[in-house]
Amino acid sequence: MTDTLRDFSSDHHWLSINTATVRQSGGQPWPLDQIIDACARRGIRAISPWRDQVAAVGLPQVAQQLKDTGIVLSGYCRGGFFPAADAAGRQAALDDNRRAIDEACTLGAPCLVLVVGSLPGALEGKPAYTDIARARSEVHDGIATTLEHARAAGMPLAIEPLHPMQAAERACINTLEQALDLCDALDPQATGALGVAVDAYHVWWDPKLRSQIERAGRARLLAWHVCDWLTPTRDLLNDRGMMGDGVIELRKLRGWMETAGYAGFSEVEIFSALDWWQRDGNTVLDTCISRHRTHC
Amino acid sequence: MTDTLRDFSSDHHWLSINTATVRQSGGQPWPLDQIIDACARRGIRAISPWRDQVAAVGLPQVAQQLKDTGIVLSGYCRGGFFPAADAAGRQAALDDNRRAIDEACTLGAPCLVLVVGSLPGALEGKPAYTDIARARSEVHDGIATTLEHARAAGMPLAIEPLHPMQAAERACINTLEQALDLCDALDPQATGALGVAVDAYHVWWDPKLRSQIERAGRARLLAWHVCDWLTPTRDLLNDRGMMGDGVIELRKLRGWMETAGYAGFSEVEIFSALDWWQRDGNTVLDTCISRHRTHC
Repeated sequence: MTDTLRDFSSDHHWLSINTATVRQSGGQPWPLDQIIDACARRGIRAISPWRDQVAAVGLPQVAQQLKDTGIVLSGYCRGGFFPAADAAGRQAALDDNRRAIDEACTLGAPCLVLVVGSLPGALEGKPAYTDIARARSEVHDGIATTLEHARAAGMPLAIEPLHPMQAAERACINTLEQALDLCDALDPQATGALGVAVDAYHVWWDPKLRSQIERAGRARLLAWHVCDWLTPTRDLLNDRGMMGDGVIELRKLRGWMETAGYAGFSEVEIFSALDWWQRDGNTVLDTCISRHRTHC
Repeated sequence: MTDTLRDFSSDHHWLSINTATVRQSGGQPWPLDQIIDACARRGIRAISPWRDQVAAVGLPQVAQQLKDTGIVLSGYCRGGFFPAADAAGRQAALDDNRRAIDEACTLGAPCLVLVVGSLPGALEGKPAYTDIARARSEVHDGIATTLEHARAAGMPLAIEPLHPMQAAERACINTLEQALDLCDALDPQATGALGVAVDAYHVWWDPKLRSQIERAGRARLLAWHVCDWLTPTRDLLNDRGMMGDGVIELRKLRGWMETAGYAGFSEVEIFSALDWWQRDGNTVLDTCISRHRTHC
C-alpha cells in the first residue's frame, strides 16, 4: 500500500487550502481576495472557498482572480442543509442548492461539497423536531432532487459525512458507510455525479473506515480533507488541530485513499477559533505548507 | 413494537440512578452513602455506582448499606482501559480489572461495565502512540484475558461503545456493531458472560442502531443508560442533558431495546459539570424520577 503513496515531502504540489482555515487572521476576518493572493505568492495551486467568503468579495471578481492567478478549486463549500420544518423550508433549501451549483460552475469547482443538515433549527438550539430518521429521509429526497440539476450542470456532488458529534445540528450522515449507501441508492451506476468528501477529522475514529474507502473507489472519492484531532478537544466545532498536532494517522489514511484510486489534492481545513484563527494568516499558510510536507 | 413497551408513566419501578449523576450536589462532592440514603428515601430500587465513589466510603460498608436498604445494582462502573504503552502497563490494567470484577461480585452487580480505553496517555494529553488499530487489538486481548476471570466469578462483562468524540481518550470501541463484533469473537456462543451496555448518549446518532440492537438480542443487552443530547453541547464529556431537554428519542430507542428482549432498568447517567452537578442532589433525583415517567 505505502509503496504507492505519493511523495509530498519535497513540495506542496498537492496542497489545497480550504479557506475557512484562514477565515480570520489575527482574530479579524481575512477577505478571500487577500487569501487568494497570499496563496498565489506561495505557489499554492488550489483552494476550496466558502460561499459566504465568495459573496463578500463578489462571485465574478473571485472567478477573475482565480483565472489571473491560475489557482484552481479542490471543491466548493457548501451545499446541503436539506431538512426543514415545512415544505416551504425544504423548497428554499433546494433553491439555495441550485444557486450553489451554479456558483460552483462559475468558479470551475470539481465538486460541490454537501453538509447535508439534520434536525431543523437545532443549529439555533431550537429543533423543530427530533426524528433523525425523518431528517435522513429529507436528506435523501433533497439530494435526489438536487442531483438532477447537478447532473445537468455537470457539477458532481460530494456528500461529506460529518462526525457524530455534529449529528443533531449539521449533518445526519455520520459515517462513510452511510454516505456510500446513499450514493448507491441515488447513483447506482457510480457515474461520477455523486460521491463523497472524506474529511479525516470526521471519520478517523471509524473502525470500518478502510473497508469503506475501498468500497468507495475512485469514482466516489471526490475530496480528501485533513487537519488533526487534538487531545483534549475543547470545542465540538472550532477546535481542530494542525496536521501533526493530534492523533490522526493522516499518512496511513491517505494511503488507503490512494490505494482506492484517489489522486487529487490534500485539502487543509482547520476551524480553530481558539488558536489558528488568532494567528497571522500568512504564518498559518506557511505552517500548512510545512506540515503538508512532513505530516500529510 | 410500541405495544410491547413497558409503561413507565405511573411509577419509577424500573429507574436506576448511575451515581455519577449526583457525584456532586451543589457543586460539592456528595458521598455515596448519602446518595444511597437519598435514593432509598425515594423508593429508587437500583443504582450503578463508580469504583471511586465506593472506595471513598468503603466496599464492605457500601455492600452492607445496599443490603440494609434493599437497593440493588443495575451495573458497576467500571472496568476497562486495557491499552497501555508497555507490557507492564497492560498487566496492571488486567490486575485492576480483576479487582473490579471482585468488587462487582461483592456488591452483587449484574454486570461490570467496560470503558475499554484507547490511546494510552491521550486522557492526559500525551498519547504514547496514535495507532488506534493497535489500541483495538490490545482491547481485544485485554477483554479476552479478563473474560476468563469474569466467567469464573460469574460476573458478566458489558462493553460500552462510547461516542466517537471520545475515541482518542476513553474508548476505541465506538459503535454497537463494533462492540458486538467483539462479543461474537470472544463469546461466540452468547453465553451471557459478555455483552454490551447501550448508552443512548453514545449511540443515538448511529444509522445502524436499530439493526444492531436487534442483532444483539436479549443475551447481549446487559444495560440501558439514558440522558439527553443538548443543542448546543458545550463540552465533549460533561455536558449531558436531563432526559427531555435534548434531541434523543429515548422512548423510541427503548422500544427497540425491549423488542429485542431487554427487560431491565433504565439507568440515568448524566455528567453535567455546568448544570446538574451544580444543583442540589435531592432536586436532581426528584427530577430523574419525574423525567423517567414522562420522557423515558
